[in-house]
Amino acid sequence: MDKKIRVGIIGYGNLGKGVELSLGQNPDFQLEAIFTRRNPNSLQSDSKIVHISEIENYKGKIDVMILCGGSAADLPEQSPKIASMFNTVDSFDTHAKIPEYFKRLDDVTRKAGTIGLMSVGWDPGIFSLMRLLGQSVLPIGRDYTFWGRGVSQGHSDAIRRIDGVKDGIQYTVPIEAAIDMVRSGENPELSSKEKHERICYVVPEADADREVIKNQIKNMPNYFADYNTTVNFITEEELNRSHKGMPHGGFVIRTGTTGENTKQRIELNLNLDSNPEFTGSVLVAYARAVHRLSKEGQTGARTVLDIPFSYLSPKSGEELRKELL
Amino acid sequence: MDKKIRVGIIGYGNLGKGVELSLGQNPDFQLEAIFTRRNPNSLQSDSKIVHISEIENYKGKIDVMILCGGSAADLPEQSPKIASMFNTVDSFDTHAKIPEYFKRLDDVTRKAGTIGLMSVGWDPGIFSLMRLLGQSVLPIGRDYTFWGRGVSQGHSDAIRRIDGVKDGIQYTVPIEAAIDMVRSGENPELSSKEKHERICYVVPEADADREVIKNQIKNMPNYFADYNTTVNFITEEELNRSHKGMPHGGFVIRTGTTGENTKQRIELNLNLDSNPEFTGSVLVAYARAVHRLSKEGQTGARTVLDIPFSYLSPKSGEELRKELL
Repeated sequence: MDKKIRVGIIGYGNLGKGVELSLGQNPDFQLEAIFTRRNPNSLQSDSKIVHISEIENYKGKIDVMILCGGSAADLPEQSPKIASMFNTVDSFDTHAKIPEYFKRLDDVTRKAGTIGLMSVGWDPGIFSLMRLLGQSVLPIGRDYTFWGRGVSQGHSDAIRRIDGVKDGIQYTVPIEAAIDMVRSGENPELSSKEKHERICYVVPEADADREVIKNQIKNMPNYFADYNTTVNFITEEELNRSHKGMPHGGFVIRTGTTGENTKQRIELNLNLDSNPEFTGSVLVAYARAVHRLSKEGQTGARTVLDIPFSYLSPKSGEELRKELL
Repeated sequence: MDKKIRVGIIGYGNLGKGVELSLGQNPDFQLEAIFTRRNPNSLQSDSKIVHISEIENYKGKIDVMILCGGSAADLPEQSPKIASMFNTVDSFDTHAKIPEYFKRLDDVTRKAGTIGLMSVGWDPGIFSLMRLLGQSVLPIGRDYTFWGRGVSQGHSDAIRRIDGVKDGIQYTVPIEAAIDMVRSGENPELSSKEKHERICYVVPEADADREVIKNQIKNMPNYFADYNTTVNFITEEELNRSHKGMPHGGFVIRTGTTGENTKQRIELNLNLDSNPEFTGSVLVAYARAVHRLSKEGQTGARTVLDIPFSYLSPKSGEELRKELL
């Protein structure tokens, strides 16, 4: 058996924990250390926890660093530094800034002789791959992305900032009738609000006026006002019992025509009990690809679009052809 | 703009016609000629039709040959010959013989300095890719493939061989309850007959005994006896009106768990009005990858598992990152 792939995790939030879990399911990896900006002694884990300031000591001892920080503040600052010392994989997901982030990562990694694989996960990630496949195979057509049923952190935060709200959560839910219209191949023009509705579960303070809260949510510009929004009041117990998971998912649908009115459809659906655990699992599979690219002597920035699926598997090409084709 | 990719089609049956249609949707290709074993004058097409015996004259004039023959007899004989002169892409789909076919194609193409991309289509092809992605991302889990609703040529032929049958067609149909059981994450053991039912449309001869035909179909070993089979008698007019398309499709579902009982599901569904037109479209997208690999100086046999999706698109990496990630 080949030597194990030695990895480090940077950041121990929900995503970092998802990566740690996934590594436990993949025996070809060895988790060397989890790096944190917090006090290592304050974190609970069976893995080795190390302060981020010691990361340079791990040069040459870790094959791939899995970056689990946030896209807004952490990754743009961390990633070039880390990528100058290690191969990296990250889940950078600020869509508008991807070209700029790629450029910086590419410069650093080419100079350092490392690989930096960015924007790995499911959107960007698996959903991007499906959009690319759909457009390439059915060039005369359209693609649609629906998100959900899943928790939107931004919308949940917006609810919790309202006076009289003790706790709350918001689910983005794709509208079935819109999905069916897309599936039919009618090629409708659909805005985000025509594709999704918003369902809120709110724990009010004891003395709060529920009607006022409900109206504030439903009329909140940008977040809710344009959408079909439902507000449900529940107890704190129920919220904690039924709404502390982080489910998510969605659909990428490509509808196209080939011959005269021959309709063809490719549809991918993800249905995830835990968004961070799934994203973590995707990061781990792509960490395998990073290691292989690096062993081949390749350097520079990459995205999922550049990686053959065979690089995601611990199996040989021969096994894959025999078992999966 | 780059020079167009010059392609040839070998074989002008349903699949060859599907490729020809698809090329018309992809302006970066130029169809140089369609090669046939039949008398070229006997075929109707706006494209140039050439007898296969003249194929050597096209060496250096065609970048990629798209092989559209059958897997049973045509491809095993044709493909090594053609691949010794041209880059090729084919839809070889005899699953059990893929390793052996790969080996022969790899030997020929390495010697000749060409690329041979095999088993392209949707199964093997896109379905294989999804099985690989699912297994890599969710290693603790199971995958299921359902085929249909679609025409099975072998089963339709079996019906037509029965005495008293004038014409007939068979649809393989996935059983919705089985799909739902899989989606639930129960990980059921399901045989092919528990996943699919068979629906037949039969045109009887005027004097035929329908009960006898029905029983012969329902009790036919291997083909129908083990399955829930429905036989419908229809008129020749109705068969020609409603059953001359070649629809197909199916599902690849991967269900897995990440954390303690966290269920995750990846599901791909294809819904195709025309199987040969869709398969032809997939071949054309992968012909683009073949051309690019060859321009990079690569040689040897490949499968879809080895090809990054970015190679399927006429767009640059920069455009793809900006538009699709």
